[in-house]
Amino acid sequence: MSILVVGSVAFDSLETPSGKRERVLGGAATHFALAASFFTDVRVVGVVGEDFLPEHERVLTVKGVDTKGIERAPGKSFHWTGSYLTDLNAAHTLATDLNVFAEFSPKIPEGYEESDFLFLANIDPVLQLQVRKQMPKVKMVAGDTMNYWIGAHREKLLPVLQELDVLLINDNEARMLSGETNGVKAAEGVLKLGPKTVIVKYGEHGSAAYFSDRSFGDGVKRRPFRTHTVPLQEVVDPTGAGDSFAGGFYGYVASQKVLTPEVFRTAMFYGSVMGSFAVEAFGTEKLQQTTRKDVDERFALLREISHL
Amino acid sequence: MSILVVGSVAFDSLETPSGKRERVLGGAATHFALAASFFTDVRVVGVVGEDFLPEHERVLTVKGVDTKGIERAPGKSFHWTGSYLTDLNAAHTLATDLNVFAEFSPKIPEGYEESDFLFLANIDPVLQLQVRKQMPKVKMVAGDTMNYWIGAHREKLLPVLQELDVLLINDNEARMLSGETNGVKAAEGVLKLGPKTVIVKYGEHGSAAYFSDRSFGDGVKRRPFRTHTVPLQEVVDPTGAGDSFAGGFYGYVASQKVLTPEVFRTAMFYGSVMGSFAVEAFGTEKLQQTTRKDVDERFALLREISHL
Repeated sequence: MSILVVGSVAFDSLETPSGKRERVLGGAATHFALAASFFTDVRVVGVVGEDFLPEHERVLTVKGVDTKGIERAPGKSFHWTGSYLTDLNAAHTLATDLNVFAEFSPKIPEGYEESDFLFLANIDPVLQLQVRKQMPKVKMVAGDTMNYWIGAHREKLLPVLQELDVLLINDNEARMLSGETNGVKAAEGVLKLGPKTVIVKYGEHGSAAYFSDRSFGDGVKRRPFRTHTVPLQEVVDPTGAGDSFAGGFYGYVASQKVLTPEVFRTAMFYGSVMGSFAVEAFGTEKLQQTTRKDVDERFALLREISHL
Repeated sequence: MSILVVGSVAFDSLETPSGKRERVLGGAATHFALAASFFTDVRVVGVVGEDFLPEHERVLTVKGVDTKGIERAPGKSFHWTGSYLTDLNAAHTLATDLNVFAEFSPKIPEGYEESDFLFLANIDPVLQLQVRKQMPKVKMVAGDTMNYWIGAHREKLLPVLQELDVLLINDNEARMLSGETNGVKAAEGVLKLGPKTVIVKYGEHGSAAYFSDRSFGDGVKRRPFRTHTVPLQEVVDPTGAGDSFAGGFYGYVASQKVLTPEVFRTAMFYGSVMGSFAVEAFGTEKLQQTTRKDVDERFALLREISHL
């Protein structure tokens, strides 16, 4: 099965306790696609500028990612400058240069609308909805968002939430979206806004899936499911951890015939595994070097450190 | 097998988002003993004042806890006043009235020195060491401490760490004690100070055990083990969660013939289970009402929400 992901393909300038990097390849769709490519076919819809070179494209194509949907526009690519010097769990944005991304209007290349799985990475919810409408035949829709859209554009976000089988969201975003401080109540509050299932990400403390009675189409509401992250001696660069989690999670789901609770749980573990690789080097460096054997070994490790 | 616990038996005045309570029964040894009593025999060594009434003692004795080691002194019991209004994960101390606890000099009643397991709850490390020396025959020693002793009395704490099979400690305390910011490096740094195993508690995000090659006496250093907490719709009062975790953990260990890695992992789950009951009501209220059936059901729940 194939996933279509729409989102940012960008360059990041980063500062973390481990060092500094200028203009490394990044963006939500990039991290997502690389992580998902270990499990299934991935097609990317996005926009880049003239600074996006063949060497950048090869990072994706070498993993089999279909880049036909990455539009070239005159000007520069989206560029984010951020620092994690004070807290590895919270990015401090120094500059957001939208560049060609400011006028992004996603176009679905011919044949892409046959994709079975759609992932709406964190972009303007108006664009997320626009893409969703162009893909009426997908089997499943998952998506991400951020505090900016929750706080300043809630009315644009709400119709997107109605379309989602799975919403992936950070802990503080879930609290913000629901108005609840307790984590469980926050997740339940988010479920009431439309998504069939919500995955709440707790940074270094893993993630939790909260299910509704619509999660698996059988009217049964299941208990939450929790994952840990892989213990790491050094987190080099947290950028893209959440997108890599989403890619591992959704990539595994798309590789399976039916979405059962067991498939969902296994997918969460693969999400955690892919997120753990992402943070071990700057940008996409580690995900580029990772092999399927590495993935399997880390999956086994995550199981070992969490199972009785 | 029986556990001897030395620590505070106290009264707590508390304010949390769920309400206010004046002078409810508390103290590290109290919470520990109640939680451990579900698994094994427990003996408490501590000191109380004239305000410790038969009704308070019955909270412990009704669960089979041996209170012979609770000394009566003229004056009032230790009284802690705290608030969790701003953050359920961090207690804000409003007042610490040591009262009779200021002059506490632990006395081990006759027969108690035959206890197989010793738990040194968070008290002055000088007293912890004094008790340890009086119990030369114990099979295993576990203990807790707090930021105050780490920051202001490190030189008194270090000899205690050398005596511990298991140190239980909060995340920020592990970082403080080791001088490391990364969680894994912090735990490894703490292990170098003496304890064979360290359990780091992450509040609502569960706990992790970090092992040395001395953890199980076979020279093998094992990977960490992580547990979640039980998802709760309301945390009423976090006071005693860590002590209840310790009680569940150590109580289960003491109920087993040999400390294997599997026993250790299962004990961590029981710790998490007992901690989850502790926070559901003020003081010891919920642990008093909890049945062994409740414990077994919640253990199964914790397994369900974390296992593939």
